[in-house]
Parts: sequence; C-alpha cells; structure tokens
Amino acid sequence: MIESETEKIAILRLTGNELHDVEDVVVREFPLTIIFNNQELVTLLCSPANLDYLAIGFLFSEGLLKNKDEIRKVTVDQQRGIARVEVDDNLDLDRDVLFKRLITSGCGRGAAFYNASDATNQRVESRMQIATAGVLALVRDFQHHSVTYRATGGVHSAALCDSNSIIVFSEDIGRHNAIDKIFGQCLLSDMPTDEKLVITSGRISSEILLKVARRNIPIIISKSAPTDLGIQLANDLGITLVGFVRGKRMNVYTNNWRIVNSG
Amino acid sequence: MIESETEKIAILRLTGNELHDVEDVVVREFPLTIIFNNQELVTLLCSPANLDYLAIGFLFSEGLLKNKDEIRKVTVDQQRGIARVEVDDNLDLDRDVLFKRLITSGCGRGAAFYNASDATNQRVESRMQIATAGVLALVRDFQHHSVTYRATGGVHSAALCDSNSIIVFSEDIGRHNAIDKIFGQCLLSDMPTDEKLVITSGRISSEILLKVARRNIPIIISKSAPTDLGIQLANDLGITLVGFVRGKRMNVYTNNWRIVNSG
Repeated sequence: MIESETEKIAILRLTGNELHDVEDVVVREFPLTIIFNNQELVTLLCSPANLDYLAIGFLFSEGLLKNKDEIRKVTVDQQRGIARVEVDDNLDLDRDVLFKRLITSGCGRGAAFYNASDATNQRVESRMQIATAGVLALVRDFQHHSVTYRATGGVHSAALCDSNSIIVFSEDIGRHNAIDKIFGQCLLSDMPTDEKLVITSGRISSEILLKVARRNIPIIISKSAPTDLGIQLANDLGITLVGFVRGKRMNVYTNNWRIVNSG
Repeated sequence: MIESETEKIAILRLTGNELHDVEDVVVREFPLTIIFNNQELVTLLCSPANLDYLAIGFLFSEGLLKNKDEIRKVTVDQQRGIARVEVDDNLDLDRDVLFKRLITSGCGRGAAFYNASDATNQRVESRMQIATAGVLALVRDFQHHSVTYRATGGVHSAALCDSNSIIVFSEDIGRHNAIDKIFGQCLLSDMPTDEKLVITSGRISSEILLKVARRNIPIIISKSAPTDLGIQLANDLGITLVGFVRGKRMNVYTNNWRIVNSG
C-alpha cells in the first residue's frame, strides 16, 4: 500500500481578478478489478489505499462473503489494480442470482433487494442509545479526521464509532467504497460491529442502509441528506437514521428512541 | 411524469438544545430498470422525473445509442419503474464487448475505456472560449436554479449552457444521472451540444469526462473537486476542466486557453 492517495499538479487559479500558476493537490482515482474465485467480478473506481479492505468489504456488502473463515486467500496487485479473493467453494450461494444481480446493477446495485425478504430478515435489535451531545462531539471529531478531504475536497469519509470515539476511519473518492473499507477492515481484524455506529460524509441512500444492516449497525449518522428510500429502509430495518448533523443541529428520521436529548 | 421528486415526512429535529417534532422535505429515490431491445440492462437509482431523458442519456453514455434516428420506441412505465427502449437492430455494436463491460462495471462503469482508443478518438476540437466573469455568472445562475437542492440538500444538478445562459437544467440524486438527463433531453429534442459547456454540482471523475467527450463538449465546470484521472482524461481529450468555482475563485486544470481573464 505504497501508492499515495493524492497527487500534485500545476494549475491556473483565479483569485482577486488575477490568474496565477499554482501547484494544487488533487485526489487520485484508481480502477480496482476484483477477481473472485478466478472470475472477474467488478471494476471499482476508488482511492488507491487499503485495497484489501475495499475488496473484502465490497464482497461482504454484496452478500458474496459471510465471514472471515470463508476466505482462503486475498492478494492485491497494486501495480495492475487487481484484487484476487479466493473463498471456500462450498458456499451456500446461488451463482445465477448473483450473476443476474451484477448485470442489472450499475450504480444501482442492491436494487434487487428492495422488496426482498433479505432486508427485513436483518432487522437490527440493538438497545444502544446515544446522547445528542455525543452525536455532535463524534461528528466534530469525524470532520477533523479527514486529512485527504482537507487537502483536496475530493473524498468521502466513513467511520465506525462507539458512543465515545472513532474506532475505524477511512476515506475514498466513493461514498460506498469508504463504508466498504471500514467493514472490510473490521472483518479482516475480527473487530465486531455490533453496538457500534457509523458516520458517513455522504448522502444516505438505500444502498448505504443495506450495507450497515448487514453489519448489524443500529445507528447511522451523516452530515448530509437521506433519501426517502433510505428512510423507509432504516425504519423497516430498525436502524436509527440521523442526518444533517451540522453545528448544533441534527435531524432524526427513524427509530428516534436511540437518541437521548442531553439538553 | 406526475410523480414528485420530493416527499414530506415527520422527523425529530434538534435545535437549541431541544428536540422538536417537525415536518421535513426529503428527496425521493426511485429504482428505474432499463430494458433495451427486450433485454434487461440495468437498474439505476434516480429521482423519479424525466425518466425518458435518463434512459436515453444513459444508453448514449454507454455507447449503446449513437443518434436519435436509431430509436424506434421509448416507453416509460412510471408505476413499475421500467423504461423500454427499442432501437434498430442493425447496429454496429459488439454485443459481447458490451455485455462484458456491463458485468465488470458496478459504480466503476466506463473503467474499460481508460486505455482504449475510444477516448482519444473523441478529442474535442472546439475553439470556444469564455471569460472568467462569464464562468462566475453562469455558476451563480446554476446555483439559484436548483429548487430541489434548496428544499432537500439531497440532489445533484447539471446544466448545458452557452457562454451567456443555461439552456437545459436537470436535478437527480445521482451526479451521473443528472448529466445523462441533460444529454438525453438534447438527443430527444434535436438540440446540438457542440460549442456548449456543462456545469455540474458533483465531483469530476473519469466517467463524467467520458460522458461530456461523447457529446463533444469543450468545457466542463464544477463547484467541486476533480480527480487526477478526470484531469488526465480532460487533458487527453482536449477538454477544459474548471473546478472549485466558489465566489470569485476557480481552478483551471486543463486546456486553460479557453478561459480568458476578464480582469
């Protein structure tokens, strides 16, 4: 993992009615192809760091991986942009369903799940609660954490937290990738995600909800907006969705009993 | 197109140390399945408006459609979330290549093109120029245009402009979709895109560059950040890339001879 996530380039900048030649830092975009059991699966555009976490997190989010024990081998060829993941072949997976789903996915991967029983099977039962002051403090920490964002403005970030602090943090040009990376790291490091919450810089759409539900996360927090489908899924899955956390404000969209006003 | 792009819901809002029950407006997220010549192609998560523009724009961006004359029929079933597009079958398209590309795409669709001659074949030769004051004025107009964004904070927007004003404007929860919608509208309304520029609210990654190159757009402008791959493609494709247009500032990343300082 030696590749940098940013790059310096020469640009022309307008400031105060004048154009100047300056050096700027931009975020890198890297195509990573995941080969799953010797089958080319997908090419993700991502930030070139922690590609093993991304590959494992993506496979988990897509339902192709259930736990760490199934993994036989993970190799990342950073030069060629390839992650090979081999898992035990005796998986209880319907390859045809999987194949169909990937074909009809595009940026809308996961769409096949909306009305499926898959989702409601995964209802999160955690009794975890957090004070409003705790949410505000965590989001403040979260925003200070993002080094690449402050340098480039070009990445999303995601974090796994307990009520008091950030446990795992990641950045990526894709908001889905940033979340897959934290879950990939958790899976590879045997870090449990129950009774934890997730903070994301990005909008909360249905796909984000399905990802956190798969990890049994009871609370998802964003400084951005949710979609109606994200809210509906959060409601159905027993997840507390908090959006627009900015300054001392926040919106609690679903399962609001987990957010306790600290006044 | 009767479905609203937003929805009202009851939420809990923290303001000034107090939690209040309030009504909030959130953006809708809608799964649209595109069926192309009776073959299910992709499911996009999008805002439920102008679905015909989205379907046509997407097919054009993916190279499955070259011009309006090829289209035999477009039907949108808003209730079921299905757009059916039928085109003349005697297309000069390699179905296997297409199929392969869609399977290995995910959110990284277009990745197969990075090193392909496809991209450089489409070098934009336009001599169009625009003054810095013109860029700033267009971006101001652009930001005032976004009704759904101001209501929900949950959408991206895109616009096709000439040097003086916005010609076509669209909003969508996806930054790719917003651009596909403007190009779909142009295609269906016989609106030429040469000598025009595009403004987007989103980050400028490689996929966005490939979309505008296909429409022969010489200038792409964003208030957000570009990626290094976006910059590299803009450079190779002869496209002027302007980012971080905020207040009276902007960064010109490539082909900067098209941006003339108005002082």
